[in-house]
Amino acid sequence: MIVEHRTLELSTRGNDQILDLTDQVQALVAETGLTTGQVVLMVQGSTGALSTLEFEPGLVDHDIAAAMERIAPRDGRYLHEETWHDDNGHSHVRATLMGPSLALVVADGAIPLGTWQQIVFMDFDTRSRRRTIHVSLLGVCG
Amino acid sequence: MIVEHRTLELSTRGNDQILDLTDQVQALVAETGLTTGQVVLMVQGSTGALSTLEFEPGLVDHDIAAAMERIAPRDGRYLHEETWHDDNGHSHVRATLMGPSLALVVADGAIPLGTWQQIVFMDFDTRSRRRTIHVSLLGVCG
Amino acid sequence: MIVEHRTLELSTRGNDQILDLTDQVQALVAETGLTTGQVVLMVQGSTGALSTLEFEPGLVDHDIAAAMERIAPRDGRYLHEETWHDDNGHSHVRATLMGPSLALVVADGAIPLGTWQQIVFMDFDTRSRRRTIHVSLLGVCG
Repeated sequence: MIVEHRTLELSTRGNDQILDLTDQVQALVAETGLTTGQVVLMVQGSTGALSTLEFEPGLVDHDIAAAMERIAPRDGRYLHEETWHDDNGHSHVRATLMGPSLALVVADGAIPLGTWQQIVFMDFDTRSRRRTIHVSLLGVCG
Repeated sequence: MIVEHRTLELSTRGNDQILDLTDQVQALVAETGLTTGQVVLMVQGSTGALSTLEFEPGLVDHDIAAAMERIAPRDGRYLHEETWHDDNGHSHVRATLMGPSLALVVADGAIPLGTWQQIVFMDFDTRSRRRTIHVSLLGVCG
Repeated sequence: MIVEHRTLELSTRGNDQILDLTDQVQALVAETGLTTGQVVLMVQGSTGALSTLEFEPGLVDHDIAAAMERIAPRDGRYLHEETWHDDNGHSHVRATLMGPSLALVVADGAIPLGTWQQIVFMDFDTRSRRRTIHVSLLGVCG
């Protein structure tokens, strides 16, 4: 039985940027030797989110952002912005709805994703940032 | 301590179809003898999603799809469709937002759902498919 | 290795009320002595949801509800309501999309949240309720 905690450090530019974390997460699974179990990813911070997505330019650079704009438009009215005199009310709403964490299954030494399914981090903030993703790996080896 | 991996194989017809997985997942918990712990469900593929829902026809056949249509309309413009010359841009957006996985608690030998709360798989793709749901069961027995 | 199940009991008033559970969840982690591992939170019932959010009045009392109103308007048409002759179709849709559970990472004896990131329960129902949140804590101590 192993119980491991690791982190991924990312440099992001915000504004709905989507990053593919698949290789980094699968490498952590391989490195720990986990064969069967669970991986939980969690972003530290309230304007980023995790999910899976086919990582191709149409979805990544346009389609997800367009849907987010329908739910929480950038130029909408946010009392959050009146509280802090900032501009990222939509970022918080988008991140909370998409979700700050992702639970995944490990089987046969890897996360059994589809061919066109990648693990993604979405940065909804309005500026570039350093991001920490916490990764918990739990299960059995060998 | 047990760490088990199982799969559920589903035949789906897509187009916002919602399937009730509750009995199958509770049966896996019973079969492994897990009394206290966690279950993670994850769909392999990028156009399906997991959540919980009161499984009754109003929500299942109309209300969820109507909300999805507001977020990612079927006839909207998706650059994903221009990339692949296909028709399921909305499927990807809906699945990513609903989420590809679900973490659940096991207590006293079962997942303590509400009476009107079922574990559901949603198939947002535009065609019938075979789907694999990965299930990780982790915790103690007896 | 510990595998613990606990519950949090909440009194809620519904109508998009958002409650900050951070202190209660961090206290459970401390109480069990868990240093590295995973925590899963799950609401029993189909009209509540869990996520993280900066817990400040602008987001809590207005901005999240305003986005939910775009996705599943309170006065929209829900076949769920025609089934049951009730008024909470929007509550079910909002809760399913936001998600009934939350998987979190434990590292160095606590959940490594951001300074402005709180664990929240959202009650989307249309009346006051008693709510049970199930908490699974799994990992190593010391």
